[in-house]
Amino acid sequence: MRNFIFHNPTKIIFGKGQIKKRIGKETAKFGKKALLVYGKNSIKQNGIYDQVTSSLTEAGVAYVDFPGVKSNPVLSHVEAGIELARKENVDVVLGVGGGSVIDSAKVIAGGVSADHDVWEFFTFTKAVIKALPILAVATVSASASEMNNGAVLTKEDCCNKFATASPLFQPQVSILDPTTLFSLNAQYSAYSSVDVIAHMLEAYLNCLEPSVILQDRLHEGLIKTIMESTDIIMKQSSNYDARANIMWGSVLGFNGITTAGMGHSAFPAHMIEHALSALYDIAHGAGLSIILPAWMSWALEEKKERMARFAREVFGVNNSDNFKAARESVERLKSWFASLGAPVSLKQVNITENDFEKIADNAVNNAQMWGMTNYNKEVITEILSKAK
Amino acid sequence: MRNFIFHNPTKIIFGKGQIKKRIGKETAKFGKKALLVYGKNSIKQNGIYDQVTSSLTEAGVAYVDFPGVKSNPVLSHVEAGIELARKENVDVVLGVGGGSVIDSAKVIAGGVSADHDVWEFFTFTKAVIKALPILAVATVSASASEMNNGAVLTKEDCCNKFATASPLFQPQVSILDPTTLFSLNAQYSAYSSVDVIAHMLEAYLNCLEPSVILQDRLHEGLIKTIMESTDIIMKQSSNYDARANIMWGSVLGFNGITTAGMGHSAFPAHMIEHALSALYDIAHGAGLSIILPAWMSWALEEKKERMARFAREVFGVNNSDNFKAARESVERLKSWFASLGAPVSLKQVNITENDFEKIADNAVNNAQMWGMTNYNKEVITEILSKAK
Repeated sequence: MRNFIFHNPTKIIFGKGQIKKRIGKETAKFGKKALLVYGKNSIKQNGIYDQVTSSLTEAGVAYVDFPGVKSNPVLSHVEAGIELARKENVDVVLGVGGGSVIDSAKVIAGGVSADHDVWEFFTFTKAVIKALPILAVATVSASASEMNNGAVLTKEDCCNKFATASPLFQPQVSILDPTTLFSLNAQYSAYSSVDVIAHMLEAYLNCLEPSVILQDRLHEGLIKTIMESTDIIMKQSSNYDARANIMWGSVLGFNGITTAGMGHSAFPAHMIEHALSALYDIAHGAGLSIILPAWMSWALEEKKERMARFAREVFGVNNSDNFKAARESVERLKSWFASLGAPVSLKQVNITENDFEKIADNAVNNAQMWGMTNYNKEVITEILSKAK
Repeated sequence: MRNFIFHNPTKIIFGKGQIKKRIGKETAKFGKKALLVYGKNSIKQNGIYDQVTSSLTEAGVAYVDFPGVKSNPVLSHVEAGIELARKENVDVVLGVGGGSVIDSAKVIAGGVSADHDVWEFFTFTKAVIKALPILAVATVSASASEMNNGAVLTKEDCCNKFATASPLFQPQVSILDPTTLFSLNAQYSAYSSVDVIAHMLEAYLNCLEPSVILQDRLHEGLIKTIMESTDIIMKQSSNYDARANIMWGSVLGFNGITTAGMGHSAFPAHMIEHALSALYDIAHGAGLSIILPAWMSWALEEKKERMARFAREVFGVNNSDNFKAARESVERLKSWFASLGAPVSLKQVNITENDFEKIADNAVNNAQMWGMTNYNKEVITEILSKAK
């Protein structure tokens, strides 16, 4: 096991009925006026907006609405949020939504007192020095942003989708009520689970430390549970226990617990997917269901031991040959993604070989930022060609 | 899954070489003068005392020694620690040792400003209102006290070993260096692993919530890893990876992560063991290796589904009959405890049937405190008779 520091102080309040009961009181501990960050209209349609705002009002917390966060959230919108937070002099930022909303809330919280372009957080030319307290009500389970310190943003003009992290981006409190997931449609639910599996599988497959049996078993148990639970919600959108497993499992799979002790891991499928999302604005989960199996096919020989273990432990593959078992894991994963209605080839999202150069150019930027310099244009093109 | 709140803000610094490098700097964040709580001479013999004190000195933190904590730590010693902490006006309490030491450090930290007998924390007649910051350097891996908010203490005059908990008992920072475990002898190492397994297995077997597949898999993965790693260290005391798995696995198994969502669980074997430790001062792990299999035999019919799952997932038992598989899990666990040199009958620790009434009387007290009122004298005696 490698040396590590684990520090995740977010307070998680989990379960049905918790939003209305607690978000006001919890927010009130951090201030009297909140910037309420959310997306489009869904939280108004499914009643969550009312639960949040009535709880805030009851606890004496004023709020200023800042709606309009879109999937693959963009810098310009965050900048408008920072301006509003300054003008309204809010004490706290409350994100109600999925990863896009919570990530936007984080960057707004960190941007209020920053005297520079917040994009510099993402190019690592400036660190977050100070941030307003961040709270979250999660309504999509994918990014685990509700219990980690990361954020992802897209800068529209240069088509870069970059990630950053800061201890000050760790939410103080997050409320996770599985019933909020009931109204997510099948497509969105599927993409979310693809993202959750991808977070864990990329860490698991790219680990270079040999002694990680403890972490392997945590990952395998969570991946199996997320897959089974996703199969259930595809048929029963309001199955509480399955939604709860996904809501908590997605957080455990990307909040540092499962990876502590594994050392540095690479996320090549995420890195290439960020280029797809940045250029074509396709859903992150859809990009991952295309790229992850393609990357696995490309990495088959190098990662065959890890993939074979994955095949045996998660899919019950009974093949003692590592390469063959590994190959089967790719087929099984791809079939499972397809069974959810997630795309597994670029052609399904109307991307052709003519686009490869542009994608590779963009992804190489990410590879540089993420310290994955072995992923040059040629390599990325090769991976893309396996996703045709 | 049941509703839950998870909040574990302890910062964990894990790995070789971390004590000397960091404990001074981390302590300095909380104050200039520390009460240094530890046990007997072992930390002086194995060099950890020097690592800690030189790091404190280098960081400009003064320290006052408070040694002498014994296994099954006692109230009178903690009271002396509180007196010393007050007299010396320390800012922070640093425990260097196992659960006994860290638990003592916690109660001292909470007792300094208390205007009442600290035993009242354990009878739940007073809550902890204020506590000095607590830091820990773990040198035994069993209680997970280094990353939870619990403490256990024995009041000598009435022979009660009670447990309590407070958010203020959560360490701010804990350093876990697996090399500190190298000098633990085989017996102590075995007892520690028995305790770790017992924490998880009691939660797992006594869970009343049916939808806990996610938590089951986390428990099963950790239990398997602890068992395999314990087998290794029995032969290779200085096997770093095995010690690391035990050090981190023991914490994950009892810091709230694995049980979040399971609802209330009972710990009957721990409850009865506390009576044994209180009355006969036997090692906690030794008491558990006797009582846990006896309790399992007693609970066989009622808990057969849970035990059968345990048998299949952890021991690979291939028996489709739940009762038979459950019975096999008891035998397998008992054999494994015995293989470590841990006692599996009361007679091995010189306790006979004549002692049963006294033990049951004491345990009934614990059962009341822990809200397990179905464990009356008759039931406890029945369990003890299965441990003869």
